Amino acid sequence: MSARAGIVVTGTEVLTGRVSDRNGPWVSEQLSGLGIDHTHTILVGDRDEDMLAALEFFRTSGVDLVVTSGGLGPTEDDRTAEVVGRFQGREMVLDEPTEARIWEILQRMRVRWGAALDEDAVRAANRKQAVVPRGAEILAPVGTAPGLVVSPAPDSAGPVVVVLPGPPRELQPMWSDAVASEGFASVLARATTYRQSMLRLFGIPESEIAATLRAARDGGIDIDALEITTCLRRGEIEVVTRWQPPADAAYAALEDFVRARHADTLFSDDGTSVDQQVASLLRSQGLRVATAESCTAGLLAARLTELDGSSAYFPGGVVVYENEAKADLAGVDPAVIASVGAVSREVAEALADGARARLGADIGIGITGIAGPGGGTEEKPVGTVWLSVAGADGTRLTRHVQLPGNRFDVRDRSTTVAMHLLRRVLLGGADGISEAAEG
Amino acid sequence: MSARAGIVVTGTEVLTGRVSDRNGPWVSEQLSGLGIDHTHTILVGDRDEDMLAALEFFRTSGVDLVVTSGGLGPTEDDRTAEVVGRFQGREMVLDEPTEARIWEILQRMRVRWGAALDEDAVRAANRKQAVVPRGAEILAPVGTAPGLVVSPAPDSAGPVVVVLPGPPRELQPMWSDAVASEGFASVLARATTYRQSMLRLFGIPESEIAATLRAARDGGIDIDALEITTCLRRGEIEVVTRWQPPADAAYAALEDFVRARHADTLFSDDGTSVDQQVASLLRSQGLRVATAESCTAGLLAARLTELDGSSAYFPGGVVVYENEAKADLAGVDPAVIASVGAVSREVAEALADGARARLGADIGIGITGIAGPGGGTEEKPVGTVWLSVAGADGTRLTRHVQLPGNRFDVRDRSTTVAMHLLRRVLLGGADGISEAAEG
Repeated sequence: MSARAGIVVTGTEVLTGRVSDRNGPWVSEQLSGLGIDHTHTILVGDRDEDMLAALEFFRTSGVDLVVTSGGLGPTEDDRTAEVVGRFQGREMVLDEPTEARIWEILQRMRVRWGAALDEDAVRAANRKQAVVPRGAEILAPVGTAPGLVVSPAPDSAGPVVVVLPGPPRELQPMWSDAVASEGFASVLARATTYRQSMLRLFGIPESEIAATLRAARDGGIDIDALEITTCLRRGEIEVVTRWQPPADAAYAALEDFVRARHADTLFSDDGTSVDQQVASLLRSQGLRVATAESCTAGLLAARLTELDGSSAYFPGGVVVYENEAKADLAGVDPAVIASVGAVSREVAEALADGARARLGADIGIGITGIAGPGGGTEEKPVGTVWLSVAGADGTRLTRHVQLPGNRFDVRDRSTTVAMHLLRRVLLGGADGISEAAEG
Repeated sequence: MSARAGIVVTGTEVLTGRVSDRNGPWVSEQLSGLGIDHTHTILVGDRDEDMLAALEFFRTSGVDLVVTSGGLGPTEDDRTAEVVGRFQGREMVLDEPTEARIWEILQRMRVRWGAALDEDAVRAANRKQAVVPRGAEILAPVGTAPGLVVSPAPDSAGPVVVVLPGPPRELQPMWSDAVASEGFASVLARATTYRQSMLRLFGIPESEIAATLRAARDGGIDIDALEITTCLRRGEIEVVTRWQPPADAAYAALEDFVRARHADTLFSDDGTSVDQQVASLLRSQGLRVATAESCTAGLLAARLTELDGSSAYFPGGVVVYENEAKADLAGVDPAVIASVGAVSREVAEALADGARARLGADIGIGITGIAGPGGGTEEKPVGTVWLSVAGADGTRLTRHVQLPGNRFDVRDRSTTVAMHLLRRVLLGGADGISEAAEG
């Protein structure tokens, strides 16, 4: 019986989706790495009774640990510390060393914010953030909010609750202190070992993977010893498997089986993303890639520079939204645009060549398409995208795809297709990306 | 007593954060628009007992409606229909009209995917997706998965469960059918009227809003009749208030109070984003804006083109990551870079001028900064960003900010600062963005 945990993400802004939660996923990954089984994440607004209900759900379901994020700020709707105190049967007390510590931090912030700050507001915020459940372990603030590790009161039962601040840049650095706390240690003692592996495929539908898993079972592989999930993410299929050590052989057999059936579309078996593979191929080959984007309007350049150190292989690019810019900045012949249209094989290739030439890069990528919702025609409906990668030695890979979804999806998926085309060119291998693959 | 609802988002990939959930937020907004009070969103993996526990939580907490997303696909880990059937005490039956309907859809898809599809896989997927709880109302598929509206069996109590597919482009078009169902109608009959308003501010810390709310209460405004949440989102503060009609006067008084105290930083009181305001200002003034980006590497161009029709005011831009590109594509004098560095007022201004000139735009925006994690120095730490907006009539607004967070945050926040600078220039108003405002 492994240790189990739940996550409670507080904040009406998260519940209603005005802010997307980055803490649940991050904490989930940490728990998984510690061998703790994560069962549910509950998003809840800033209402005491709703928060309490979420905590009680986890007490009822018998988890060992609950991690909360958010609700530790200075405003009146930040209620987490108090609610957790109530849940654990511990009264709230002012912790003077914490108050002094926050005061120091606030004094440093005053220097930055200057006279704009209201003295009373600062003092009230200071005091509120230093009121904690009696007996809680206090985690040093990264911003102004201390974290808390709150065990049940001596006479009651339930999970240990780790209370962390909402901003990811405060929560994440605080995690190691939380794990090192006494309360957390009592949970870790019960954790078991899990292994996890991820296979990534590009260019086939999800139903093919379902068929493969059925075939693997029919072929005698002990699928039931493995916890397998498949999902479609930004146009790629991810097959994630989690298992306990006795099932090592079953997993090895499954991986071989998938590899044999999907050799041409399986591109990652070690957790690496196509982005990381492209970065590493560019580095090892000492090549530089430049972009000329129309419908994606900079998204591919932004994606190519998401990783630190990308200046080693990305000099820059051009965003050529209007046709005049395609001519001026990427050297596309206006006569070609006039004759075949801006969304065409010819223009995608000219953009790739133009990017390469203008940036002095080894490889150029051109993208032109119709992201919608307007601009589609019978012949070129919304989602029509032409992509071209012009390689170092005259190689060229040009593809037409018909992408599903809305404006956001079409633009995002286009960058995924571009990354895979670039990867193919860098590998110099056969071209497994069929034109229909994105339908 | 208003109608209350919960959301259950299924999928291990969502629980573990490999895929970020877009359905919870979207459904939450729809519920709010219908006057239904949304209390919790539960993310749960593909395990029957965990899904059941989530549903039971909502039965216990007495909600009238549960909306689920995901788990309707063709793979074996797609378990939602069956679990909901069990939860409602309804046995699973094959619905033949639905099977025929899905078969038709799959036949159309075969044309696109061609011979790659496995016949047995397709038939199995077809059949699985047509097995539904007896008595469920069936919502026509948008992809291949039908939605379901499942009321409790005649002899049991609990919420109506609306079962929707995971892909947002399938879930969203299905919503209106779900709302029109009999099961949903029984819930809507109990919904009450809420009003909601959002104020957006840029350039002050969240604690100032907390102080303002305290001052409003001290000034006699009936804050307790309002449900107020404040949050920091991409560098802006959002104050969202929800109230029932009897509190109209209290809200009006609060809005006046906030407006008086924060006239210079309140930029939106009607739900519009800075992006929408900038788009509408550019349209109404007939101006075009171009970009020259270093650290943001295309993110600002991508943001300026997120809205449909942006080609009316955005011709294009350049991404000038390396210094040579800054010179070649944006006309920045290499001697200036050599003397003051690429991250400097001078280079930001030259980039803005270069963008404007090269794209023939009325306004140019230049961004140069250190996104990290590497590249920081004592004098120019990570997060140092210079931004400049060169306006149509020789106006210019140049700012230096020190942004918090990691590489992602710094790049994203930089685009927010740029949008606000652009807005200021378009309004021709006083410059309320202080250099310290982003500290």
